[in-house]
Amino acid sequence: MKKKGARLERELVNILWRSGFAAIRAPSSGSASKNPLPDVIAGNGKRYLAIEVKSRKKLPFYIPGNEIKSLRDFCGIFGAEPYVGLRIDYQDWRFIRVDDLKKTEGENYRIDEDVVFGRGMDIHELTGVSRQVKLFKD
Amino acid sequence: MKKKGARLERELVNILWRSGFAAIRAPSSGSASKNPLPDVIAGNGKRYLAIEVKSRKKLPFYIPGNEIKSLRDFCGIFGAEPYVGLRIDYQDWRFIRVDDLKKTEGENYRIDEDVVFGRGMDIHELTGVSRQVKLFKD
Repeated sequence: MKKKGARLERELVNILWRSGFAAIRAPSSGSASKNPLPDVIAGNGKRYLAIEVKSRKKLPFYIPGNEIKSLRDFCGIFGAEPYVGLRIDYQDWRFIRVDDLKKTEGENYRIDEDVVFGRGMDIHELTGVSRQVKLFKD
Repeated sequence: MKKKGARLERELVNILWRSGFAAIRAPSSGSASKNPLPDVIAGNGKRYLAIEVKSRKKLPFYIPGNEIKSLRDFCGIFGAEPYVGLRIDYQDWRFIRVDDLKKTEGENYRIDEDVVFGRGMDIHELTGVSRQVKLFKD
């Protein structure tokens, strides 16, 4: 599981470089650091992204509230936009703004189809090559 | 040597956190990535720093030109200020702006007392807590 996580983080880092961002993997949370760290950090001189990477076989799943809080805390200090980067098996990456996540009553976050495909974006939308425009917002 | 490098990078990361920057170590250059990576990246919402970490027993020493080029290249894409962070044994950290380095005829960079103590700055000057003011610039 840890190995797969590292492989996916490297995959995302390479995709970001190809999209005009300089990107790096942060050291794993198993390191000596007690500071909150995202999995991947990227910048293109205008925007800075901090991404918590998740991989799952299927939806829905839940992210503990403290993980999202750590991501927000890091971004608040560093100066970056917080995202969850999700790789569902055999599918392309999806990215969800932390503000677009759904909080459960138990203070965790529910990642379901609506969050991933309705609110989330693909790599092109994330990196600003194209933007999903919703003409009629309901 | 590699172990010492990692320890010093962690030391610098912790100093930066205490100075109001969110900081991370980048994966070692021994990783799969072929992209140019600095040793430490930090941000405080206003400024972004990319630091190549060096430790030496004494001065002067030389940094290969391609290392500085890689650092500049990363910074140009990511959007960060490029620095060399130097820890001479038993002394405090010194930081030198890449533009303040001295290029040799062999296209390398010479790090000597003038560069480190004349042009370089300490952690407070780097992080903007205080600024070295030169009233009479000669």
